[in-house]
Amino acid sequence: MLEVLPVTIIDDAPVIGIDAGGTEIKAGLLSGAKILEKRRYFTERENGPEHAVAQVLLAAKEMCDDYPQAKAIGLVVPGIVDAVSGIAEFSENIGWKNVKFKEILESAIELPVGFGHDVRAGGRAEAIYGSGIGYKNSFYFSIGTGISGAIVIDGVFNENPYSGEIGHLDVNSGISCPCGSSGCLETIATAPSIVRNYNKNSSNKLSNARQVLDLAKTGDPIALQAWSSAVDAIAISLTAYVTILAPEVIIFGGGVSQAGDFLLNPIREHFDKKLTMHKAPTLVMAKFSDEAGMIGAGLLGSDALKISKS
Amino acid sequence: MLEVLPVTIIDDAPVIGIDAGGTEIKAGLLSGAKILEKRRYFTERENGPEHAVAQVLLAAKEMCDDYPQAKAIGLVVPGIVDAVSGIAEFSENIGWKNVKFKEILESAIELPVGFGHDVRAGGRAEAIYGSGIGYKNSFYFSIGTGISGAIVIDGVFNENPYSGEIGHLDVNSGISCPCGSSGCLETIATAPSIVRNYNKNSSNKLSNARQVLDLAKTGDPIALQAWSSAVDAIAISLTAYVTILAPEVIIFGGGVSQAGDFLLNPIREHFDKKLTMHKAPTLVMAKFSDEAGMIGAGLLGSDALKISKS
Repeated sequence: MLEVLPVTIIDDAPVIGIDAGGTEIKAGLLSGAKILEKRRYFTERENGPEHAVAQVLLAAKEMCDDYPQAKAIGLVVPGIVDAVSGIAEFSENIGWKNVKFKEILESAIELPVGFGHDVRAGGRAEAIYGSGIGYKNSFYFSIGTGISGAIVIDGVFNENPYSGEIGHLDVNSGISCPCGSSGCLETIATAPSIVRNYNKNSSNKLSNARQVLDLAKTGDPIALQAWSSAVDAIAISLTAYVTILAPEVIIFGGGVSQAGDFLLNPIREHFDKKLTMHKAPTLVMAKFSDEAGMIGAGLLGSDALKISKS
Repeated sequence: MLEVLPVTIIDDAPVIGIDAGGTEIKAGLLSGAKILEKRRYFTERENGPEHAVAQVLLAAKEMCDDYPQAKAIGLVVPGIVDAVSGIAEFSENIGWKNVKFKEILESAIELPVGFGHDVRAGGRAEAIYGSGIGYKNSFYFSIGTGISGAIVIDGVFNENPYSGEIGHLDVNSGISCPCGSSGCLETIATAPSIVRNYNKNSSNKLSNARQVLDLAKTGDPIALQAWSSAVDAIAISLTAYVTILAPEVIIFGGGVSQAGDFLLNPIREHFDKKLTMHKAPTLVMAKFSDEAGMIGAGLLGSDALKISKS
């Protein structure tokens, strides 16, 4: 259990934070939430999961070589992650299985190593430094290539490696999911799903979700349908979350969340209609946008530094 | 936050536990999970919410008069309950609103008074003395006149008064719910809903869910439809719970749970199909059946006694 508060658990010594995603690897030299230096590597998952692991290791080594002032390193990855044993159990997105990342980094690098889940780490960064400050019960909801969330209950992070997987909540989309089930939120509301949903019905082929959103804003019916299907499914899944855990705030992160009120307002309307017993939570944007995971990785590095000193 | 463990927090001095439900009020003289004496009163909600409050008070006073060896009293009620301020905020079932039960009992009775939510208290009783022993992440799921649950995360009870209201998860039943929303699990899976669903389609009118189950076991198609609709909806809602919180065990309480494997096996099959990323939780029956709430009320009485001594 990682306590969100007090903030004083954070050592602001410079650390390296690495957020390895399906497309790119964000690497930063950080002091708390302050980004001193930042670089971008590519995961190149099309070359297979072993290559992706090698790319992560390359990024980690280069950052350590080039920034010798760093006192620790933290790495976060997507999918099912066991932070305690340091293993990336599964990412359907990148394709790796049971990668012992903590062990791999510790044998390659002379610094204390922290390791964890990208969205949970991002949620912790938001809780400590960002939009979650002041809330004891929050949900950090990240929508990008994948969808998952980080749960804070009574000021304590939920570190269960299988929790928060709201992207695999069945919202009746009727579409098969790579996880093996069907109807999952991810099949209709991730950035690639929104694009796929548009392209399926249009001769005009788009390549990213922002283009779909821009078209929807002009009133294009196919784009509106693709966008609304995503937002409705998100609203349904968040209503389920609120019914079960009743958070005070939901913090929206990830690329799709940059739609802002075009995303949040329909969810607020859905809450008004459906949440008859529960108080509707406050909906806010993440402060650190797509850098929350990297800042959270730095926090895990700081934790490892603290443990190494104690 | 009430820690589930260690068991040593429980003072086994005799206490009175009262579980006020929509139909009856169960009152016991208890020592831990041991029921020394037990009585039943009737809520008589048809005479209005004020009368129901008076019935609860009558039960509490008579128990205290007749069992002077009791060192404390605990009361649990359904609905939205603020255990900290001692107020029953709302029960759509009984019809009361903002009843200051703790204050009312404290001014009528000379003993330390504990107060809480019936299902959360029942879940705590199961966690400490019953089917939840040995699990750090559990969900006590109670299906009777209403449906709700008690959440244990990392060995700590979730005391958020709005959490666990899984009976109001939207399972697309299409039926209006007294809560003001529609499609809620309670509209299709409570004992009264199962009966209503059967009677709607049959000229043979039944009065309780056990009769529907017994007919379903003989292969009666109308009864099978009513039962399966309930079980399917329960399986959908529990799959949503597992996707978000990934408990190790789900403990089934309340009258409808007495169907046993006729309820649990279809849920296990649904989990096999739908839980592709998550480990399916163990499904077990509550140890204390419909007495869990009363035993949990006794635990709240024991807490109040401990606080009064400290």
